[in-house]
Amino acid sequence: MQLHNFNSGPSILPKEVLDQAANAIHNFNDTGLSILEIGHRTTHFVAVVEEAKTIVKRLMNIGDDYEVLFLQGGATMQFMQVPMNLLDENGLAAICDNGVWGNKAVKEARIFGPVQVVADTSADKHTHLIKDLKLPANTSYLHITTNNTVEGTQWHSYPQLGVPLVGDMSSDIFCRPTPFHQFDLIYAGAQKNMGAAGVTMVVVKKSMLGKISRKIPAILDYQKHIEAGSLLNTPPVFAIYVSLLTLRWIEKEGGLAEMEKRNLAKANLLYNTIDASEHFYCPIKKEDRSIMNAVFFLKDETKEARFLEICKQNGMIGVKGYRTVGGIRVSMYNAMPHDSVKAFCELMNDFS
Amino acid sequence: MQLHNFNSGPSILPKEVLDQAANAIHNFNDTGLSILEIGHRTTHFVAVVEEAKTIVKRLMNIGDDYEVLFLQGGATMQFMQVPMNLLDENGLAAICDNGVWGNKAVKEARIFGPVQVVADTSADKHTHLIKDLKLPANTSYLHITTNNTVEGTQWHSYPQLGVPLVGDMSSDIFCRPTPFHQFDLIYAGAQKNMGAAGVTMVVVKKSMLGKISRKIPAILDYQKHIEAGSLLNTPPVFAIYVSLLTLRWIEKEGGLAEMEKRNLAKANLLYNTIDASEHFYCPIKKEDRSIMNAVFFLKDETKEARFLEICKQNGMIGVKGYRTVGGIRVSMYNAMPHDSVKAFCELMNDFS
Repeated sequence: MQLHNFNSGPSILPKEVLDQAANAIHNFNDTGLSILEIGHRTTHFVAVVEEAKTIVKRLMNIGDDYEVLFLQGGATMQFMQVPMNLLDENGLAAICDNGVWGNKAVKEARIFGPVQVVADTSADKHTHLIKDLKLPANTSYLHITTNNTVEGTQWHSYPQLGVPLVGDMSSDIFCRPTPFHQFDLIYAGAQKNMGAAGVTMVVVKKSMLGKISRKIPAILDYQKHIEAGSLLNTPPVFAIYVSLLTLRWIEKEGGLAEMEKRNLAKANLLYNTIDASEHFYCPIKKEDRSIMNAVFFLKDETKEARFLEICKQNGMIGVKGYRTVGGIRVSMYNAMPHDSVKAFCELMNDFS
Repeated sequence: MQLHNFNSGPSILPKEVLDQAANAIHNFNDTGLSILEIGHRTTHFVAVVEEAKTIVKRLMNIGDDYEVLFLQGGATMQFMQVPMNLLDENGLAAICDNGVWGNKAVKEARIFGPVQVVADTSADKHTHLIKDLKLPANTSYLHITTNNTVEGTQWHSYPQLGVPLVGDMSSDIFCRPTPFHQFDLIYAGAQKNMGAAGVTMVVVKKSMLGKISRKIPAILDYQKHIEAGSLLNTPPVFAIYVSLLTLRWIEKEGGLAEMEKRNLAKANLLYNTIDASEHFYCPIKKEDRSIMNAVFFLKDETKEARFLEICKQNGMIGVKGYRTVGGIRVSMYNAMPHDSVKAFCELMNDFS
């Protein structure tokens, strides 16, 4: 049976990336050593980090006023590391709470300074975004989750309000051409669109740093990581290498314009199928729907378990909604083939 | 040419671990999916975490008063995470500074509370340990680096002074039977004796936690990781799996007693060769020498570059001493074959 991997993350990766990763475990770059056995300060691995940074900057179309770092701990670490580096009692973090991840960002930021939730969509079960934001005068930065993996909403343009913008792009990084320069700090766990779990990319405008007086532990200090060229300590060597392979794949396939073309085609097919269906519905406001994660429901809830069972029997993996949301969630990251979404839509139609 | 990988970390892994890891990238546990593509909350991966914890507890011979966690950030993260969780202004961290890593632990702990350096061997270039320690009355815990990777010293028994003991075991974990129960918190980056870079094991006695009132960010709070069963957020899935494979290998080969037998044989062969040589010398006090990392020098310093060149020509990788120490460093972790150390010793004799 052919499997269709709709996991929300860790999630599907291109087959050639997997093949190259497996080969490097046997013999990395013809060194005769495994990628798991090489020193992180060897020229071989330094070249991996440098190439990955270069591709990121090229895809983002950003200059040397930004630094690219490969860190650990995922978005959950960034929920605290961002305010630890950028927020103190004299400032304020304005945060949009549009779901599970934004909510966690709020909680962690409060440890480090004043926080104002400038958008809270919980009353509407996060089925839309609030884009008309009012910020307090002393806002240090505005934090948004560019794609809400759990709830199925996505920002399709970004608030430009004259304050630094921080974006958690974990689940939609590199899904399409994006005005990355509108952001002052971007972070993304790699395990959706840019590799395997175990590495977190942080892209930061250098002018954002050094403005607060808090004593920051070395491992959590962006400035120290910049000074050390992303090699402050032993980095997650293999996870960074898989990110490099995935970044190379994105460029080889045609870059962000091609990713957008494919992702729009998949998302349009799925949402059109849902909207045309008598048995399924998507509660997310059309203009805010995510092209990465479609969250939808059966009109007759009692049929949900049966539908999920049929999905399983047909090799459709990872389509059960997040535990606090329920329903169905279909994740369609860059590496997801159009044919898998098509097969899923056919199954929906058959079920109807 | 056969390669001999003496890297200090990331370092050599057993060939069968590498083969199994590469296979899992193609097809993990016959799921038809890559280990890089599976969800971390699937039964398949939860079983990986549970088995790894079980093996760790068996190898350590510890009970349910301890918890095993698989975190990220390496020892460098633990230098701050330990005091963040255990130290406040009412207590004191007593730390042995026996080299590069202990020194970093001192610096990071000072951010969180009072620190007293209870042993400082820098005046003697860290060529021995100070084992007769005097601790202040209000010591919250004593921190030691059980093996000094850079300097080549190792604790062969541990200070039992009636205060909680914290051990950075990054470079000698599972090298031999060890009274792990003498410790209240043990941490180890995996990339030497227990896997690949990207995961850090923390073993903590639960009674150590919850004693300070500091607000701890979720991702840095041991208690929250315990409550979440090491799945607070997306863990480094592949790195944990490689650790499981390495832990299985240790048990299959005969456990810690067998590791000790092999490691002692390798270390004795190397140190005897050095001590018998007219051209090499090891400045480390005999009773404090590490069986993991041998640090030694050429009596005629001007010949060092030539010796390193010959090592390179003969496939001996990673034998240059740490930049602040110089000389030669030969790391002989669990996976290092006896024949590699033998080949290195023959090269030393030939050079002489």
